[in-house]
This record gives sequence, C-alpha cells and structure tokens, in this order.
Amino acid sequence: MASDEDQAASFSAEQYFATQPPPPSLEADIVRVQEFVLRQRAAKRKVVLVTSGGTTVPLELNVVRFLDNFSAGTRGATSAEYFLKAGYAVIFMHRQFSLQPFSRHYSHSTHPFLDFLDVDAEYIEVKSAERPQLIEVLKAYKQVQKAGTLHSLTFVTVNDYLWLLRAISKELYPLGRNAMFYLAAAVSDFFLPRQKMSEHKIQSGKGSLHIEMDQVPKILKPLVEEWTREGYIVSFKLETDNALLIPKARAALARYGHQVVIGNELHTRKYQVVFVSPANGKPAQAENEEELDPSKFSETWLRIDLAVNPAKEIEEDIVAELVRRHQTWAADSS
Amino acid sequence: MASDEDQAASFSAEQYFATQPPPPSLEADIVRVQEFVLRQRAAKRKVVLVTSGGTTVPLELNVVRFLDNFSAGTRGATSAEYFLKAGYAVIFMHRQFSLQPFSRHYSHSTHPFLDFLDVDAEYIEVKSAERPQLIEVLKAYKQVQKAGTLHSLTFVTVNDYLWLLRAISKELYPLGRNAMFYLAAAVSDFFLPRQKMSEHKIQSGKGSLHIEMDQVPKILKPLVEEWTREGYIVSFKLETDNALLIPKARAALARYGHQVVIGNELHTRKYQVVFVSPANGKPAQAENEEELDPSKFSETWLRIDLAVNPAKEIEEDIVAELVRRHQTWAADSS
Repeated sequence: MASDEDQAASFSAEQYFATQPPPPSLEADIVRVQEFVLRQRAAKRKVVLVTSGGTTVPLELNVVRFLDNFSAGTRGATSAEYFLKAGYAVIFMHRQFSLQPFSRHYSHSTHPFLDFLDVDAEYIEVKSAERPQLIEVLKAYKQVQKAGTLHSLTFVTVNDYLWLLRAISKELYPLGRNAMFYLAAAVSDFFLPRQKMSEHKIQSGKGSLHIEMDQVPKILKPLVEEWTREGYIVSFKLETDNALLIPKARAALARYGHQVVIGNELHTRKYQVVFVSPANGKPAQAENEEELDPSKFSETWLRIDLAVNPAKEIEEDIVAELVRRHQTWAADSS
Repeated sequence: MASDEDQAASFSAEQYFATQPPPPSLEADIVRVQEFVLRQRAAKRKVVLVTSGGTTVPLELNVVRFLDNFSAGTRGATSAEYFLKAGYAVIFMHRQFSLQPFSRHYSHSTHPFLDFLDVDAEYIEVKSAERPQLIEVLKAYKQVQKAGTLHSLTFVTVNDYLWLLRAISKELYPLGRNAMFYLAAAVSDFFLPRQKMSEHKIQSGKGSLHIEMDQVPKILKPLVEEWTREGYIVSFKLETDNALLIPKARAALARYGHQVVIGNELHTRKYQVVFVSPANGKPAQAENEEELDPSKFSETWLRIDLAVNPAKEIEEDIVAELVRRHQTWAADSS
C-alpha cells in the first residue's frame, strides 16, 4: 500500500468522512434501502448495487459551477435491466437525471415519446410502429414494479456518492456472498473540501480562474477491507488511451484485492470491454505498478459485432459473464 | 469600455474565433437555421432565439472531465413554449439533454411517462388521471410541428455555444427589429483554450489537480455592435447574492448597450425576477461600475405567488412582458 499514489492522497477515507458533511437526505435514503434489502433477503434473492452516471464537484457552496465527469449513465441503466432479467434485485444508485432502466429507451432527445403518440379529440393512441417495443418495455417495467426488485436512489456530488456507497455497503453486509457491487459510476478523482469552497458564485472579470483540488480517497480500499468482506466487487476503468487499460486494471486489483476490473476505452466501449481478474485468488501486492507479474492476472475480452446485430447491447454479455462468476463465488463460500 | 474587467480578459471575441476551431456540425446546423428563418420571414413572423441550459468546458481533448454550469434548462424550455403560444417562431438552441419545450412536462425522474401507461396484452392505455394534461401538451406540440415554428439545435461546450450564437445572429440580421435574443443559457465565464488541453484523460494519483482557465470573451459586445444592430436583446444575470443583482445588471447594460437584463437569484428564481433596462435609450458608459447613475435605469419586478397558484409559471409573465416591450421596439423602427 506504500505506493506514491497513496502517499500523495491528502485524505484517507476515514479523514474524509470525519471532515466532510453527510448529505441531508442520507438517513431517509438508507431507511428505504434497509427495507428493500430485508425484503430481498426474505425472498432469498441476490442483490446487486449498480452505481451509474457521473459525480459532480461543486466549486461553490451555492452551486453554480461544478466539475463533472462525462457519463450519460448508459452502462449502468442498461446493465441494471439485464440484472433484473437474470433474477437479481437491483439497487440503482444513479446521478440525478442520468439514464434509468426502462425509460432509457425513450430519451427525450433521441426517441421522444410525444412523437409516437397520436391525439384525436380526447383519444390518445400509440403509433403502430412503436407499439411492439413499448409493450415489451412496459411489460418488463410493470413486472419489476410488481416484484419490487428495483430500488432507485440518486446522487449529484461526489460527496453524496461516497456517503451513500459506504452506507449502502453496510446494509448489504448481511447478504455475504449474495451481494454484488457493480461500480459503473464515473466518480471524480478530485474534490474540493467544504472548508475551501467559496460561499457565493465565483465572480468573473478578475482574470483567469484557478482551481486546486484534493484527491478523493481511494474508496475501494475500505469497501473491500471493511465495509463488505464477501461481496463480489466489480469496478470499472475508463481510459482514452488503450495502452493504459490493462496495466491500470491490474494495478487496481493488486492495490485493492477485489474480484474484477472491467476496462473500457472511451471510443470503443459500446462493443468491447476487457475483464481483468486475479488468476488465482488475490494477486501479490507489488511496490510499484511496473513490478506486477502478468501471470498473476487473467484477461477476458468481450466483443460484439454491431454490423451483424445492431440491436445487441454489450451489457447483456457483461451481465451474463458476471452472473456466472458470481454464481461460482457464492458457491465457494464454505 | 476600459474597465478592469475588459483589460483582464485574455481573448477578444475576434481573437477567440481566430484561434478556437468551429464545431464540426456548424455548417450543417446553419443551413437548417437558414431554411427555418426564410420560412418565418415569408410568413412575417417574429423570431426569437432562445438559448438554454449550461455550457461545458472540457479539460481534455478526449473528454472525460469538464467544468459545467448548473442549469436544467427549465427557464429556456418553459419560455420557448410561451413564445410559441404568443405567435413567435422559436430557434431553441439548448444544451444536449437539457429540458425541451413540451417534453419537459414528462421528466423521466419526476413524472415518468411509463408510469401513466397501462398495458394489457397488446393494448396500451393512458391512465385517466393523466389524460387531460397529456392531451393538452400533445395538441400544442402537434400544432407547433404542423406550423413549423420551432427549430431545435444543440450545443455541449462553451465553444459550440459561441460559434453557434455568432452564426445564428448573422442569420437573424435580415429580420431587423423582428428578431429577439433571449439568452437564458448559463454560459461559462471561463474556458480552456484548445492549445492548452491535455490529449488524454488527466491521470489521478499525482497529488492535487490544478486547473487554470482563461476568460471567455464578453460576447454581448460584438452581438450588440456587429452581429445584430436592431435585434431586441435580453440577457440574464444569475447570482447567489441578492445584493449583487441590480448593480451587476446595470453594469452589463452600461457595458454592452442592449435592451434588458433579467436578474434572478438562485433560490428565488422560480417566483421572482427583476427586469433592468435603460430608463431612456442607452445609459451613459461610466469608467467603473460604482459611478453608474441609478436614475439612468429602470427596474421592474415580476413576482408570482405559488401559494395561491402552484401551477403558475413565472415564464408566462416574463414572456408576456417581453412581447409587449418587443412590440414597442419593433414599432419604433422608423
């Protein structure tokens, strides 16, 4: 754990939570998560926490400006649907206004539902071309509502995200190996401590803008070591430089000791990803990233051919692969 | 024009456009705007350009992180509907995925349309409680589509915004006093010149993040003085400190010489705004903001009482007031 990276971080997770205030809705949010988890345990369902969308870093207390991470929430919203289809209960913790399971098929920008409704006096009709897909989506949606297997809650800032992740992971603890963490949210690596924030809108007209931010604590560390000890943990690496994908995924596994890193490159992420995992149990920790032994890791590429099947979603294959691996993991618990 | 603010700005508008590349879709976007404006001129309609939503400032060429301005696009999307109702043709230039006229009533987060559809075998029905509003929204939407009075186009970055604003204002030039600019978008005051951007995702783990940004040129200046000479220009000031609202609005009018600044404070903007305008023609320019003569300006507050009428939208009154003022302005052209 003595890498340069960790030494440079100015906040440990513990220090972070000791100095940054919890979001006002945290307690109410967690009561609802508790109720949801109790019902799923009673039904003996596996539960996956899916995080989705980008987190913000507000620059002002009265927020006008913020740093954000690019993410529409497609990966998370789509995966949540496939987890539900596979029989999982899903806690869908997403960025406010990011895509959600089911409604994601009807983006107001690319597939607005007002366009496929006809109105004639007092009668509204769905255009026939749109009917089959809408019926399918609606049926799946109503079924999930009836079964009570989807619980959604939202975050905006990286601070909301960190507090929620910690609190929810503690609620999932009693599930042991039947819990999965699918951490698809695009979480900021940096934040502005509340103590350094400007109260009002930063005024322009004083020349250039200087921002200096601190590092967000590496949250996977306490998640793996303390908050959950048996949950199956899937993290994501998004890079724009393909050459960094596998080395960075391996380094994360060595550093945190979790189960899978799914690597994806910004421009190809809709049709190829790589699963990186320890070849046998946990890989040995190395003093620095260059010393990692490649034979301690296994890589599995998933690719789909959109030219052959343009409607195929790679999340279907990602989830199928994870359900298989999670099955093995849960059976190994003895 | 010799205020400290202007001296601190590192880019004039001219320098900006000479050094920052246009968005790839600019030409195609403008061809469609041209066609739209031609049709509206033939129909002798007034045209309003409504800008809406926040602009981003990408920190990387392959965008993962960006600075953003808080705005869901409510003001712009709502106002666009009322302008359409008042007989205007609307160019709705908005941030990708921000709220849009008509569909804004059915946010996937707060009023998801899947929730008010029932499905029974192959038959989809709208729940009766939702029918009256949906019929009303749909009728207004279909009527606008039929009349061809709404043209939407999108921006993401502040660079997209600046190039589009310049190009569209030139297309509106021939309309003379029949054009209005309703600049409700939350535009960044700062940007990162392309020449300073990092190609790939900024790597974390190297300690804190430092960002230094340049000032965006004050675009109202060339808009008022060069791109349009007779268009009716409405700009917005959003502040979190109420005491700054009127002084900053007055300063903007003195600096740019346009018609109205609508001031709004972050927490009260849904029910009160202030129109600030020159009392008689253009206010004299002062050497600095403190020297401005208050008698040269007039202020009109608009307030609505949401306790009395919770469904009332303040944009209805804002647009009604502007339509009146624009009418006078257009009649004055001789």
